[in-house]
Amino acid sequence: MTTTAARPAATEVEQWLDRFDSALRAGDAAAAADLFATESYWRDLVAFTWNIRTVEGREGVTDMLTSALPHIQPHDWRTSEEPAEADGVTEAWLTFETAAGRGSGHLRLIDGKAWTLLTALEELKGHEESLGSRRPKGVVHGADPERHTWLEDRRREAEELGHTTQPYVVILGGGQGGIALGARLRQLRVPTIIVERNARPGDSWRNRYKSLCLHDPVWYDHLPYIKFPANWPVFSPKDKIADWLEMYTRVMELNYWGSTEAKRARYDETAGEWELVVERDGAELTLRPKQLVLATGMSGRPHTPVFPGADVFRGDQHHSSKHPGPDAYRGKRAVVIGSNNSAHDICAALWEHDADVTMVQRTSTHVVRSDTLLEIALGDLYSERAVTAGVTTEKADMIFASLPYRILAGLQIPVYDQIRERDADFYDRLEAAGFQHDWGEDGSGLFMKYLRRASGYYIDVGASELVAGGQIKLRAGQVDHLTEDAVVMADGTELPADLVVYATGYESMNGAVADLISQEVADQVGKVWGLGSDTAKDPGPWEGEQRNMWKPTQQPGLWFHGGNLHQSRHYSQYLALQLKARAEGIDTPVYGLQVVHHTH
Amino acid sequence: MTTTAARPAATEVEQWLDRFDSALRAGDAAAAADLFATESYWRDLVAFTWNIRTVEGREGVTDMLTSALPHIQPHDWRTSEEPAEADGVTEAWLTFETAAGRGSGHLRLIDGKAWTLLTALEELKGHEESLGSRRPKGVVHGADPERHTWLEDRRREAEELGHTTQPYVVILGGGQGGIALGARLRQLRVPTIIVERNARPGDSWRNRYKSLCLHDPVWYDHLPYIKFPANWPVFSPKDKIADWLEMYTRVMELNYWGSTEAKRARYDETAGEWELVVERDGAELTLRPKQLVLATGMSGRPHTPVFPGADVFRGDQHHSSKHPGPDAYRGKRAVVIGSNNSAHDICAALWEHDADVTMVQRTSTHVVRSDTLLEIALGDLYSERAVTAGVTTEKADMIFASLPYRILAGLQIPVYDQIRERDADFYDRLEAAGFQHDWGEDGSGLFMKYLRRASGYYIDVGASELVAGGQIKLRAGQVDHLTEDAVVMADGTELPADLVVYATGYESMNGAVADLISQEVADQVGKVWGLGSDTAKDPGPWEGEQRNMWKPTQQPGLWFHGGNLHQSRHYSQYLALQLKARAEGIDTPVYGLQVVHHTH
Repeated sequence: MTTTAARPAATEVEQWLDRFDSALRAGDAAAAADLFATESYWRDLVAFTWNIRTVEGREGVTDMLTSALPHIQPHDWRTSEEPAEADGVTEAWLTFETAAGRGSGHLRLIDGKAWTLLTALEELKGHEESLGSRRPKGVVHGADPERHTWLEDRRREAEELGHTTQPYVVILGGGQGGIALGARLRQLRVPTIIVERNARPGDSWRNRYKSLCLHDPVWYDHLPYIKFPANWPVFSPKDKIADWLEMYTRVMELNYWGSTEAKRARYDETAGEWELVVERDGAELTLRPKQLVLATGMSGRPHTPVFPGADVFRGDQHHSSKHPGPDAYRGKRAVVIGSNNSAHDICAALWEHDADVTMVQRTSTHVVRSDTLLEIALGDLYSERAVTAGVTTEKADMIFASLPYRILAGLQIPVYDQIRERDADFYDRLEAAGFQHDWGEDGSGLFMKYLRRASGYYIDVGASELVAGGQIKLRAGQVDHLTEDAVVMADGTELPADLVVYATGYESMNGAVADLISQEVADQVGKVWGLGSDTAKDPGPWEGEQRNMWKPTQQPGLWFHGGNLHQSRHYSQYLALQLKARAEGIDTPVYGLQVVHHTH
Repeated sequence: MTTTAARPAATEVEQWLDRFDSALRAGDAAAAADLFATESYWRDLVAFTWNIRTVEGREGVTDMLTSALPHIQPHDWRTSEEPAEADGVTEAWLTFETAAGRGSGHLRLIDGKAWTLLTALEELKGHEESLGSRRPKGVVHGADPERHTWLEDRRREAEELGHTTQPYVVILGGGQGGIALGARLRQLRVPTIIVERNARPGDSWRNRYKSLCLHDPVWYDHLPYIKFPANWPVFSPKDKIADWLEMYTRVMELNYWGSTEAKRARYDETAGEWELVVERDGAELTLRPKQLVLATGMSGRPHTPVFPGADVFRGDQHHSSKHPGPDAYRGKRAVVIGSNNSAHDICAALWEHDADVTMVQRTSTHVVRSDTLLEIALGDLYSERAVTAGVTTEKADMIFASLPYRILAGLQIPVYDQIRERDADFYDRLEAAGFQHDWGEDGSGLFMKYLRRASGYYIDVGASELVAGGQIKLRAGQVDHLTEDAVVMADGTELPADLVVYATGYESMNGAVADLISQEVADQVGKVWGLGSDTAKDPGPWEGEQRNMWKPTQQPGLWFHGGNLHQSRHYSQYLALQLKARAEGIDTPVYGLQVVHHTH
């Protein structure tokens, strides 16, 4: 027997869980809410809400539980590790069950009350993945005249699915997002087709400029089920990650329709299914999935400003997503419009190939040196150091998820204060060169910029030194027009150019909905991504979670998935469970369906 | 401080290691040998002997150490886990260093003396693999006009290696053996080409009969660096493992020359290199590697007996390795000659396709039911249960390696006694049907048969019930001749046949040496595989290790590699380190070079 006196953190958590469990079992939402602090957050990933929601304060908890308790029936709360206390906060890892599934969670107590609670659905009862001790046998022992081999089964599936049988889910977009979700759905035995315009998995990486490497480190980038091996580089070169995605798609046995274009989709309300017309092998084909997932990426539709004179410009001009790389521009004059990640990468590669390069900075940009970011911002969660300390990528994902977005900005500010101090010289040199630098409106730095607007920053892997040193020329201001051979700025300055690259970002994912379905449905669903932080490009009101991502939308059967590799990996789990529950006819009453405040 | 009184096993090991270390540092081979029991075994994997050797008793230890100590300079012995005692044997996991490298080991003490010691080289100092915290960065930060991308580097390597630059190693055979070794050499930065007759990695599996699945379970089958994911089936279907090998080859960046045939090889003693002529894309090309590895498999050259009348037989006849599967033989009469794994698999698949099947058993065969083998013989080391108990595949490999072959048979006999008892009914039924069954000459069962002769057994996945039930007809005895439409047995019985399959095994790997190099070199190198157990197909004298495998041979620069997935995975490590040491010019004095007792 352990003595409780020696384990104050454990005792505090056990007592809290006992009371919480009693309140939940009694269906007493108010009593449960009373266990939360005045300022408190309960973040739920599908387990209680069949949604991705953060509720705030006792009122929020009461409201959610009043709605959820009758059907969710949570029980069997346990700690899965020894709780620990630090700086007045007691932390505990939890497991629990609901009527439909098993979940895991994380709790932070302050003075005996919950400050944060994370609850996440891990699996649906009766629909567990066939992993580890549940793995398939691979061969049916004994003799069976009806036996078919793995290869025969795979071939039949490929012949039938989408032709004589219909997929339950179609994922549009076969990048890392579509692939990760496809893998999870396959493990959940949900018939799925991934539709991708490019021929092969990974092509969306292969087609980018040749110097591109991931700006996120390997520990942050794992896909589900198969980890990158220990020899994998910290920053994957684009063609190497492309090969991995192609390999992964094959060995995870995904039904991946490459060279296939989604032409149009219409939701048939009566049948409760989509009519999705795709073009494959030169012919049109109609798929009728119950669920349609858009995983076309934040980088779906390039945003290219059309400046006066663009039609008379005689050189090459293209959006950064179409930039072929620097090889053809040796000795040429290049003007790159934009100052975020792609702009910097493209400028540096052009300079390395002896081009004369000018970067046009139209708005201020946040820069963080890659090494600094790795060490200070990511190192505790995603690094070799973290892995050695037992923080696997899966655990890091849960720690990260346990911090509600409302408090995340406040927690990030001191991190970026530290970065500002550490790299003071660097920022001084950059600003001395005329670079307009910012730290986000509230000083919360890169990751909040990513979550709020997915733009406005550069993770420096070398280009900033070229900007500071003047090798990449910098020109601040707005573009007025183009001439036959130059970009002319609003102040009249002429920037002679053989090449203009528009590193000007991407349209909202709403555009993809309008193109594929209708403007009406795009408006009904509303803006995708962002938190409602009321900062630039992320208008309020506060929404608490990423808009429309990985959760039910105002359009039945329409879902959004994607983001960076971390998001594609972690949130694909919750989206897959939501889709599986619907495929199995499990009741999924949604608490707090996305409200639409903005249409683009 | 820990009190030694409470840790008797740890104290015993510490005291032993102290004395051992002192003796080794003093260069006193006799004093070190005195720490071993009268019956004792020191198995060394490259760390002390630059060879794979087991020495026996104090005399053996003295002889080996007298030779090795001056240059090996072992030191810094430590335990890497808490030692434990059970049944009078104290076990400890060790680490140590030598002049050239770092090693790990395993020790068993009885009454304070070493009964078994395993020492294994893990890495060469200054030539560590770039894994984990040593992983490559993937991108060189900063701007560099000389930058080349990962893809450009890969393409240049493919263009140059074997043409304008020479590989240090050529591996002949691109099955799992060649691929695993190729991966390790790549991580050790040893320029290597894998030469394979088939077009794509995995084809040697794809080309086999369609019902083939691995008879070994997934935990036993992992390749180095990338483990099969948790959803991988226990028994891999052949086409699925083939896809894995193909993808593995790609993401591990191996230089894999498919559709390439090795025509002939000659060792140039003056240059200390091979002249290896290969045919690729219809043209002959000479490669000049310093080291040549034969990984063409025990299954290299089919052994096909030629019976009188084979030339007049009108039906189909082929070796099991060329058997296309059952589809074309529905309703036909098939005679399968042989009673080992392939024979059983092929008979069962033919029966499942409504063929009339007769198995010709020429010699007795050992059968173990797959489930029983998994549970009783492998479960402690290679199973989900083992993984849960902390016995990773790597640890299981070391535990397995720590048991010298001399005592392994004795340890296996009780395992098979248990199997005999558990499945008594099964064996009774099998023998009642006329099946000639054995347990190995000394009752040591399947794994010893594999190590001694790599034949003579069947891991039952269902065919034995068909034999017992008479669905597969059984005919014991020798074949006398074939007629136009039958196989005629020595007793005159006629077995009408539309198809004859020769499931009659493979030639020794010596044949491959004779074909590729010369009969003279084949004789000089001698028999490959087997232990010298003085049992059928494994003549004495006792050799203590697998003949010629993964270690220096009598032919400089010629090596053998292969075996099942376990051997390909584990022993590729020691072969790769030996090759790397030579590539780096490290002194590698070999203790106890393979002596040749048999030429085939």
